[in-house]
Amino acid sequence: MVSKDSTSGTVKLASGHSYPLTGLGLWKVPQESCAELVYGSLKLGYRLLDGAADYDNEVQAGEGVTRALKEGIVKREDVTVVSKLWNTYHAAQHVEAACRRSLQDWNVDYFDVYYVHMPISLKYVDPKVRYPPGWSYDGTPTGALEIENSPFHETWKAMESLVDLGLVRNIAISNMPGGMIMDLMAYARIKPAVLQVELHPYLSQVNLVRLAQAFKIHVTAYSSFGPTSWVGISDTVVAKCEPLFTHSTIEKIAKDHSATPAQVILRWATQRTISVIPKSSSSERLKGNLENEKFDLTEEEIKAVDELNVNLRFADPAAADARLGVYA
Amino acid sequence: MVSKDSTSGTVKLASGHSYPLTGLGLWKVPQESCAELVYGSLKLGYRLLDGAADYDNEVQAGEGVTRALKEGIVKREDVTVVSKLWNTYHAAQHVEAACRRSLQDWNVDYFDVYYVHMPISLKYVDPKVRYPPGWSYDGTPTGALEIENSPFHETWKAMESLVDLGLVRNIAISNMPGGMIMDLMAYARIKPAVLQVELHPYLSQVNLVRLAQAFKIHVTAYSSFGPTSWVGISDTVVAKCEPLFTHSTIEKIAKDHSATPAQVILRWATQRTISVIPKSSSSERLKGNLENEKFDLTEEEIKAVDELNVNLRFADPAAADARLGVYA
Repeated sequence: MVSKDSTSGTVKLASGHSYPLTGLGLWKVPQESCAELVYGSLKLGYRLLDGAADYDNEVQAGEGVTRALKEGIVKREDVTVVSKLWNTYHAAQHVEAACRRSLQDWNVDYFDVYYVHMPISLKYVDPKVRYPPGWSYDGTPTGALEIENSPFHETWKAMESLVDLGLVRNIAISNMPGGMIMDLMAYARIKPAVLQVELHPYLSQVNLVRLAQAFKIHVTAYSSFGPTSWVGISDTVVAKCEPLFTHSTIEKIAKDHSATPAQVILRWATQRTISVIPKSSSSERLKGNLENEKFDLTEEEIKAVDELNVNLRFADPAAADARLGVYA
Repeated sequence: MVSKDSTSGTVKLASGHSYPLTGLGLWKVPQESCAELVYGSLKLGYRLLDGAADYDNEVQAGEGVTRALKEGIVKREDVTVVSKLWNTYHAAQHVEAACRRSLQDWNVDYFDVYYVHMPISLKYVDPKVRYPPGWSYDGTPTGALEIENSPFHETWKAMESLVDLGLVRNIAISNMPGGMIMDLMAYARIKPAVLQVELHPYLSQVNLVRLAQAFKIHVTAYSSFGPTSWVGISDTVVAKCEPLFTHSTIEKIAKDHSATPAQVILRWATQRTISVIPKSSSSERLKGNLENEKFDLTEEEIKAVDELNVNLRFADPAAADARLGVYA
């Protein structure tokens, strides 16, 4: 059962482990600044580090954690370290090796949460050939995607083994739509503890959140700031909408609470027991993001933000290949 | 590969069997008029009868077919007879019995297409207790839904056995979203031949159709007329939109082709090789619906209808129970 612990800003996962409401996301963090960012965020009070093999910065993230542990800034058991199984490692025989590689890169003995990054299985690429392998089989930006026939129930069984082996405390799912979660719940011996999905005021995912909560799966939002996260990646979609930071609804609420627009957007999620994992390269903004839990929105304000929903999705693999219509 | 045979109004399924573009849907057809409707439609030239155990009229539909066969109006091999496995029979041990019951009711030796009606598994109800059992476990309109943990891959394996046994020629899926289809394609020994989903100008399902076509799965649309199919069932949603039959875009195209609005709406699908299964209690309208293939829309007209899409879904089980968020 997910229950909010208001003093610590954590929730209790169905497994009994605690999990912060606000964390640091490591997507798009450059290798050069990653160790320093992770170290600095732990000093600021961050206790959730959301990484992935695909982000290509796990070694550097691990350096940041190791330094903070050595300096006694945090203890290992106080940090929620997260990684994700990439699409090319879904075949049952590759799951453990992929997890162990990420553990080694992070320089930790176990992950608190290990996600299946996407319910998409791509052809295996040997880490000796390329790591992380990305999307196309040949590694070029325009190369073809090679789909691999790994049924999700086989991947999940291999994920469950990671718990049995003590390599991970919780297994979880990301980018997974409702129908697949329903099916997973029918066969999972170890249930998914967390669902991480794109979720922001322009894509509020009401039905998916209701479904996850009905199944006692905690929800973590990514791309909480909507279009701002996608500048330089999906500019044609970004151009279609007002940035959330300057949206009049958000600006007004921010002003009324003497908060920043970013804090309002994050609080809209965390107040409803949805975790967030914003990132920033500015330590001032990092601090501001972490402090989103220090004020409460009124019910009317939450509703006003809810009403911004237009089901606008930025992360959709179907744009690259019709067969990857996960959300179709 | 789906390829349109323009002389016969049929497509070839990936299995090699042919399948009409326009058929008769039996949802909501009362038992009293079902035999006559089926018999009459076969006389009019219909060759696709889309039934389901849940429609509670398979015995009567079978009577209509039997009469037409006896009178030599059609041969069995010229009619595509379709039924669907209901949600309460997903457990592998119940699939064959459910199929045999429907075969017996229809009084046929095999189904041309047998669907899994929905990717939703409900607790088994013995046919001796209630048949068809509907949604709630106790059979009352307000009774609780009891979810059963039957993984879809086990149900599908049982569906494949029906082909092996010669009870059905093609197995198919209905109401299944993209992510689940991707997963099914990874483990299906016998691939789904058809995908039947809600599809009309207000819910054009562009990404789902692209995904199905990429996987060589033929698409059949239900509720082709959108809101009109849901009067008396989902009136609050129906009230939100203009009926398609009186929409100015549809009316103008109909006028320009001396066609009915119904024909324009159906042709918008069939011209793109999507089958339709409208029903009507009027033999004039039945004839009109069947004749939708006799004219062609221009590319601009198809685009104009495409632009009516607002992702408005009428059939969503999540409205009844958050755990049934198949499309979330």
